[in-house]
Amino acid sequence: MSATPVPQLGDFKAYIASIDTFILDCDGVIWQADKLIPGVKETLQALKQAGKRVVFLTNNSSKSRAMYVAKFTSLGLDVSVNDIFGSSFAAADYLRQIKFDKKAYVLGAQGLLDELTSVGVQYVGGYKEDTVNPWTSIDQGYVEDNPEIGAVVVGFDPAINYFKLARAYTYIQQPGCLFIATNHDSTFPAKGGRLLPGTGTIVSALEVAHGSNALVMGKPSHFMLDCVKTAIGYDPARTVMVGDRYKHPFCFFGIMCRFCYILLTSNNPSLLHACCSLDTDIQFGLNGNLHTLLVLTGVTSLETLQSTSNAIRPEFYTPSFADLHAGLRGD
Amino acid sequence: MSATPVPQLGDFKAYIASIDTFILDCDGVIWQADKLIPGVKETLQALKQAGKRVVFLTNNSSKSRAMYVAKFTSLGLDVSVNDIFGSSFAAADYLRQIKFDKKAYVLGAQGLLDELTSVGVQYVGGYKEDTVNPWTSIDQGYVEDNPEIGAVVVGFDPAINYFKLARAYTYIQQPGCLFIATNHDSTFPAKGGRLLPGTGTIVSALEVAHGSNALVMGKPSHFMLDCVKTAIGYDPARTVMVGDRYKHPFCFFGIMCRFCYILLTSNNPSLLHACCSLDTDIQFGLNGNLHTLLVLTGVTSLETLQSTSNAIRPEFYTPSFADLHAGLRGD
Repeated sequence: MSATPVPQLGDFKAYIASIDTFILDCDGVIWQADKLIPGVKETLQALKQAGKRVVFLTNNSSKSRAMYVAKFTSLGLDVSVNDIFGSSFAAADYLRQIKFDKKAYVLGAQGLLDELTSVGVQYVGGYKEDTVNPWTSIDQGYVEDNPEIGAVVVGFDPAINYFKLARAYTYIQQPGCLFIATNHDSTFPAKGGRLLPGTGTIVSALEVAHGSNALVMGKPSHFMLDCVKTAIGYDPARTVMVGDRYKHPFCFFGIMCRFCYILLTSNNPSLLHACCSLDTDIQFGLNGNLHTLLVLTGVTSLETLQSTSNAIRPEFYTPSFADLHAGLRGD
Repeated sequence: MSATPVPQLGDFKAYIASIDTFILDCDGVIWQADKLIPGVKETLQALKQAGKRVVFLTNNSSKSRAMYVAKFTSLGLDVSVNDIFGSSFAAADYLRQIKFDKKAYVLGAQGLLDELTSVGVQYVGGYKEDTVNPWTSIDQGYVEDNPEIGAVVVGFDPAINYFKLARAYTYIQQPGCLFIATNHDSTFPAKGGRLLPGTGTIVSALEVAHGSNALVMGKPSHFMLDCVKTAIGYDPARTVMVGDRYKHPFCFFGIMCRFCYILLTSNNPSLLHACCSLDTDIQFGLNGNLHTLLVLTGVTSLETLQSTSNAIRPEFYTPSFADLHAGLRGD
């Protein structure tokens, strides 16, 4: 296969003129871990002054939108809560839209609990409940049904244990109970650059037990984009998704992981969330018929991007999101 | 598709004469939960008197072979430890065969720990370690590499929590570290006939994080059969696998679960352990070129067996394993 190389964005002025709404991934585009990427602050200010709408997406379910505002502020960025779309907000917003009126059982951290509270969803569970497995022997293993529970909502829960998994699994089996996940990211970068198991590992455990997929709210699922669309009503033809990932970080050239294999052989879109497009900003943009722009300040190198083995291709790439500033200064 | 119905076993005398070794699943064949199936005790005694070899397989990793002997004894059955093959024993035996000489990190219960000890494998972890997650915040989330660890061995661990998952995931990423699972069963029957999440849920969580499959020792993997073959050296042409499962219990006629779909569309044998053949005795027997006999005292009904949608077909079926007694009494 000889694929045409992904073109580098050149005429920033014309490009910016053609776009009204910028949807930005955060990590690898705005910041790297806790460090702002040089020039991004000025670019965001200039886009705002030029009347562009800029919104920020994150799959991280641990933080609420309010918590994210605090992170932006700490980096010197002036961002409103209405410009931030997190997977916990998307999950809460989905329940609001379907007029969910039962209780949720939650595996998740404070951010998810806050977002559910903000839309009036009552819940039990969360990271502070059942932190110690009360079963001293598995022979005691019995979870009573709870007909008040109408949804199991799974986010990142650092207090996950077997008892909590068993509760979630019991409720999921109740007739009509929804099975919702904030995201399906397999890992996340933690202290010292190490990876730790992500929400996707907890979701997968329950999916395997239950034999069916969770309804995943975060990227690359369409629910996250639906959530943005409901809130700000963008025109796809004049909207760009800017991100640093176009494929699963484990899918190096010539090595195909189980998830890639499943996707490629199954051709089943419902499997997408558990495959190589996991948390891929570009696939997310393509799914929504948006323009797509890959930046190289995150996990993707130019060499990897231009490899002939790539199936998912952004419309353009540019070394850094800060490059767009050139199109706003009249350079 | 008009499949020929699976024939019912008729001439027990001729059948028994053609078989030297009986490999039996336990639950649904010998007992139902803690209740011995009528006539099985007498059939086992008669087979032994007729000079047949009878061995017992179980995917349950919580018990060691010695613990299983106690269960057989409590039901009035006289069985030697050498006649029992559990998934924990298979995992330990595999490490013994490859002359594993590093330490294992174990997620698992006493049965797995006992089997590892019995083959001289040193380990850290297990169900008694890290029962309380020491991280009060995920920002503290950091697991040091441990170069002494050369294998992560995952069985059923009722004390599983996020910290233990993070430890396992960290070690699996170390160069050359083995990733072994006792079994991949998604659920198991617990108190009150309820299902609880099985070993497969814990294994899946780590597989998703790591992006690769564990080496699964239990049924339907060939490792379990290799283990039996090494120990007793049977002739496949004169050996029968007797079980109560020919497919995943969730795969009812007309409803295809995610795992079935993946199997059918991928045609990839490495996915078998995560698909509808999970813990299927019959598939296990077919994989090993053994004769196969399905009994109806477990999870499979005659109606389900004879449904035209079945892909995996035993050679014969009989209502109960106790029926074979007829071929030994000279009836």
